[in-house]
Amino acid sequence: MDIRIDGQRLKRDLEELGRIGRDEHGGVSRPSFSPADLEARAWLRTKIEEAGLRYRQDGAGNQFGRLDRPGRTVMAGSHIDTVPNGGMFDGAAGVLAALEAVRRIVEEKVPLGKPLEVASFTDEEGNLVGDFLGSRAFLALLDEKEVRTGRTSFGLPFRDVLSRTGFTADGILAAHKERPELEAYLELHIEQGPVLEEEGLPIGIVERISGKHYRQCAFVGESGHAGTTPLELRRDAFLGLADFALKATQSVAVKHYGSMLTIGRAALHPGSFSVIPGRADFSLDIRSASAEDLAAIEREVLALAGDVAATRGLSFASRVVDSTTPVAVAPRILGLLEEACRDLGYPSMRMTSGAGHDAQILAGACDVGMIFVPSPDGVSHSPAERVDWDALEKGANLLLRALLRLAA
Amino acid sequence: MDIRIDGQRLKRDLEELGRIGRDEHGGVSRPSFSPADLEARAWLRTKIEEAGLRYRQDGAGNQFGRLDRPGRTVMAGSHIDTVPNGGMFDGAAGVLAALEAVRRIVEEKVPLGKPLEVASFTDEEGNLVGDFLGSRAFLALLDEKEVRTGRTSFGLPFRDVLSRTGFTADGILAAHKERPELEAYLELHIEQGPVLEEEGLPIGIVERISGKHYRQCAFVGESGHAGTTPLELRRDAFLGLADFALKATQSVAVKHYGSMLTIGRAALHPGSFSVIPGRADFSLDIRSASAEDLAAIEREVLALAGDVAATRGLSFASRVVDSTTPVAVAPRILGLLEEACRDLGYPSMRMTSGAGHDAQILAGACDVGMIFVPSPDGVSHSPAERVDWDALEKGANLLLRALLRLAA
Repeated sequence: MDIRIDGQRLKRDLEELGRIGRDEHGGVSRPSFSPADLEARAWLRTKIEEAGLRYRQDGAGNQFGRLDRPGRTVMAGSHIDTVPNGGMFDGAAGVLAALEAVRRIVEEKVPLGKPLEVASFTDEEGNLVGDFLGSRAFLALLDEKEVRTGRTSFGLPFRDVLSRTGFTADGILAAHKERPELEAYLELHIEQGPVLEEEGLPIGIVERISGKHYRQCAFVGESGHAGTTPLELRRDAFLGLADFALKATQSVAVKHYGSMLTIGRAALHPGSFSVIPGRADFSLDIRSASAEDLAAIEREVLALAGDVAATRGLSFASRVVDSTTPVAVAPRILGLLEEACRDLGYPSMRMTSGAGHDAQILAGACDVGMIFVPSPDGVSHSPAERVDWDALEKGANLLLRALLRLAA
Repeated sequence: MDIRIDGQRLKRDLEELGRIGRDEHGGVSRPSFSPADLEARAWLRTKIEEAGLRYRQDGAGNQFGRLDRPGRTVMAGSHIDTVPNGGMFDGAAGVLAALEAVRRIVEEKVPLGKPLEVASFTDEEGNLVGDFLGSRAFLALLDEKEVRTGRTSFGLPFRDVLSRTGFTADGILAAHKERPELEAYLELHIEQGPVLEEEGLPIGIVERISGKHYRQCAFVGESGHAGTTPLELRRDAFLGLADFALKATQSVAVKHYGSMLTIGRAALHPGSFSVIPGRADFSLDIRSASAEDLAAIEREVLALAGDVAATRGLSFASRVVDSTTPVAVAPRILGLLEEACRDLGYPSMRMTSGAGHDAQILAGACDVGMIFVPSPDGVSHSPAERVDWDALEKGANLLLRALLRLAA
């Protein structure tokens, strides 16, 4: 059946949800389990029920709207939580595009061979205890100790946050038991990068989702008086970091084109104008769409850090903070999405997702696919986050068409 | 007359003073005008009076002990304030060595042709409003606005600190009127660097005191998602800083041997694991014993920062935070100190002071000289600051001999 989504209704839904948790800086602050998030959850529940879907929430707070049929479930969704002072499209676009697509299927009474579910996963943004709490709970991938005794990114014991919400560690850890058998999972998302806009294309079809390694690192040397310690006698931890940063970035750019290395945080100690830094703490974010490249980069940059430390009389230490595995989208999903694009007359390109997404976690349970729509100026996680409404409508139509095919 | 200081008495004085302001981390916290500093000032006054000297305090809180004679004053001293959690020798060694030298002159009733004064200057460490408050007040070099409306390094209005002490802005600004005509100023100080210890020498005779330029700087680029912004499209402010830091350090090491460049502080914004730094703020501390080199280094590194910014699609901005002028010790003082070393049989070397000292300010009013004694492990501004007692005794004997010559 050749049906289309209602672009105006999708826009209204996004704008309505975008007003919940609006902060004083013009952004949206809706971390999972915050009062604003609880308000958004209630709003989403109403929308799901108004669409004629069966509402369900699991022990991890993942929300679902089900159009029941026998067989393995075809699922589509994303998340409605945000980073503090984030935007109104990251995550929300995917949940509400899926809701709109399924709502149209209900309205048109399209006969289906399989059940369809809209999904909204808890804390994709990792404001609580690590990224992807909801989808990880859904796949039984959580670290029990972290859930029971961890602290949130705001420094609070996670159990104190839970106690104010009605959710429990036991419930989160048992959420996977409520998971239906899955046929496939599709997720529409804003690109969060500049590529589609640069290429002038409304649709990106993700063929790989990058994996990442997060490490917290430090070079340690010796602090000393900036006026009295000759340059040649210094063991300056910051110069070690500078040397490492340039060489490691260059190495990834040359040997692993398309992979990423980012140092986003640095703290020098003692941190005084006139004292040579004896210690430089920094974050290391490595991403690649290839598991082999990711492992190779990690090996290479750790060896490089060791070399820099040895050359400069420093020591180097690091520990893994988080990691995810790269995911390749199944050929049948890629083919289905590209065929649907051709049918709809939408130009598209294959691309890699450098950001992590719930789809990456769901890949542990079923075939997954992702549809990207352009991020104007490449901006996300910011009040300046925007969407190209026309491209979003195209993306939602593509999602609708793909769901119809998968659930046929 | 061939008299010597009493090394045991000097040690006892230093240990006694070192107990005032002792903090919980094992260091000494005695910033000027703190309760601990006021206690130390009262202690020093008693010591000066017990030595038979005429005690005087000027409007800036500089303390003096005078052995009166007609003519131009020969002065020796340093400071008794410390950085927070500092050591017990930086400054105190110079004041108490001068006190011990003059005390011995009094005890031996040595006939003098000129007046002698022991001096202890307020806030050499710059915990209030800029470095060298006391000696700058003594030379009428203060910025009136800073004194009247400035904030201390602890963030308090300076006038609030003053109101608790009995000192006033008017008194500070008028302190220079109480300055006697000066013949010369000598200062003994711990080296605060590793050179004397490495050379195995007890005495350093300072021939130059470095000047410095402090700048607060920033590279500004564009922040972005660490997973989705290709390396070649980034304008990473931190990589600009890293590039600049290595090239600027290398340039100073190669073209201006003996001069210093230090980046002691850096802050990346927004400062998140997964966000490319859009801004890198950092401090730049440049020092040289030569005014020409200092000006050339500043010109060169600012040009270099501009080049790095242009190459990497960043902007660069900076502002001067503080600066001092290099000082050359007068040949007659150098000759006198070296001759005295030979007479005493002490091995010594000429050296540059990379750190700033009150002597640098006093150079605006008279010939100055400095005697360095070794800093074990090069440590200062730290609870681990130590002194080589034997070398300190030699340094104090050298000071005594030089004062006798200058005041003869």
